[in-house]
Amino acid sequence: MIDIRPYIARLDWHREPQGLYAPIDYALAEGGKRLRPTLALLACQLCGGDAEKAVPAALALEIFHNFTLLHDDVMDHASVRRGRPSVNKQFGDNTAILSGDEMLIEAYKQLQHYEPSLLAQLLPVFNKMASEVCEGQQYDMDFETMADEQVSKDDYMNMIRLKTSVLLAAALQMGVIVAGGSKQQQEDLYAFGIHLGLAFQIQDDVLDVYGDERTFGKAIGGDICEGKKTYLFLAARDNASEEEKVLLRQMMALPSAMAQERKHKIEQVTLLYNRLRAREEAMKGIEYHTTQALNILSRFPQQEARQTLEQLAQQLLTRQS
Amino acid sequence: MIDIRPYIARLDWHREPQGLYAPIDYALAEGGKRLRPTLALLACQLCGGDAEKAVPAALALEIFHNFTLLHDDVMDHASVRRGRPSVNKQFGDNTAILSGDEMLIEAYKQLQHYEPSLLAQLLPVFNKMASEVCEGQQYDMDFETMADEQVSKDDYMNMIRLKTSVLLAAALQMGVIVAGGSKQQQEDLYAFGIHLGLAFQIQDDVLDVYGDERTFGKAIGGDICEGKKTYLFLAARDNASEEEKVLLRQMMALPSAMAQERKHKIEQVTLLYNRLRAREEAMKGIEYHTTQALNILSRFPQQEARQTLEQLAQQLLTRQS
Repeated sequence: MIDIRPYIARLDWHREPQGLYAPIDYALAEGGKRLRPTLALLACQLCGGDAEKAVPAALALEIFHNFTLLHDDVMDHASVRRGRPSVNKQFGDNTAILSGDEMLIEAYKQLQHYEPSLLAQLLPVFNKMASEVCEGQQYDMDFETMADEQVSKDDYMNMIRLKTSVLLAAALQMGVIVAGGSKQQQEDLYAFGIHLGLAFQIQDDVLDVYGDERTFGKAIGGDICEGKKTYLFLAARDNASEEEKVLLRQMMALPSAMAQERKHKIEQVTLLYNRLRAREEAMKGIEYHTTQALNILSRFPQQEARQTLEQLAQQLLTRQS
Repeated sequence: MIDIRPYIARLDWHREPQGLYAPIDYALAEGGKRLRPTLALLACQLCGGDAEKAVPAALALEIFHNFTLLHDDVMDHASVRRGRPSVNKQFGDNTAILSGDEMLIEAYKQLQHYEPSLLAQLLPVFNKMASEVCEGQQYDMDFETMADEQVSKDDYMNMIRLKTSVLLAAALQMGVIVAGGSKQQQEDLYAFGIHLGLAFQIQDDVLDVYGDERTFGKAIGGDICEGKKTYLFLAARDNASEEEKVLLRQMMALPSAMAQERKHKIEQVTLLYNRLRAREEAMKGIEYHTTQALNILSRFPQQEARQTLEQLAQQLLTRQS
């Protein structure tokens, strides 16, 4: 299996003005799962293509993903990303905005590596995905200020589809396109990516409450303290009686400025989640979407790339970070 | 001459989520000169193409230009744009960031309208231009915190070439490409756009000090109050004796928080500019670049599009807003 990391490391950001390009180097230097580029390479391989040919598309996707992190962190005033100061924290908001813009442009530059007929197929897929990710981010921000009864689980699923899944799905579809795969293969792997992303995001919500702080890599209960309408919250609410709904709202409205308050709020909400079987609902959701994803994969011939994709999907069921 | 405005008006932003798309509608609804799309259409016509075919490229350039305004206004904390509240003022910084991102993506979507062979020629031109505009913005921000002796007039010209000229130049080049014009025609009109942009930007610096508030549309002396290293400032400095340099620095460092202070500072700096013949230097620069631009145009056959471009260039010498 071809590894995307040396290709990312080989991207040259030692350009002038350094104020624009050094933060891009910083943003891309440290890890992350490299999930999106890996999916593009695997999809290309699975459809009989040379994974090497999918490298520019894979890089475009990874640069795009990191662009969204730069701007999301500005919008959320986040100060930590992957255990280091976020770009906005390290270099300031203006740098995070402008270097983020440049990253979005750099993603499009990667697509220039393809011959015209491939480019003409890749660009619309990439553009559609990019718009949808912005739409997902907008819905996410909209939900924050909406009353909880205004947000249904379907609304939430649509939001995470846009914010998370379509990028995985487009990564896979672009890999198929580079391989010269069929329309059906494009659709199948796109759908696989959607389900994979949904399972991934629900698991994220679960880990935020039920994860192990040491392996999860960030503080537990962050979503609860911020009063976020996660899958767990919406599942709990949908399972709640009228009285329990009132209680859930009261608990979510508790203050969380002080450490003591945080601890109390997280405990109380978690107890309520347990009583309302929120975690079980979430696990059902994860299992459903993982099964759907694996079913789609089973239409492809048995081979290394398929096995790797299956392993990836199954890891989501058991991952702790 | 085909008019781009109805095409801009016909772009449909009534999409969900409204929080993302309504600010784009707001940003594009009100005027501006529509200079960039007009240049693309004229270049296409000048090279024998059907201007209608250049409309998607023209729209891409206009949407891109307005994307840069959204993000620049966030970075500058600007509250007014074209006589109305800026997007960040009207909808908040986060909206201006995210809707700006979406506009950049929408610009790329316009390029999808072209057949593969044209797309493959247009995308690299657009990408290069987009990166350079970001570089120009970065240099502009860098210059603000640098001591004035660290910024030469050449540095300044390079900055405004990147920040302003390359967008005009790329607009023209893209028009030529759509028309199927020659490499030489691409280079010629690109160079025409560079000179046009430089003349345009120097004139902007002149109008900021010597313009008429009523026709200029904004307060006179803004650059002086902000202590900006404009063409006028750098020309004055380069003409100054050591003593005058000290004086100029002292005047530029005067406070400008109160209306009375602003008035005093603007008067003092303008007197010094007059004494150091800054305006004359700037007019020489404008004339030089306008002449260069017109010389390039003279290589093209006499026809309506060329006359319109000549008029555009000459208006820059006499414009008051």
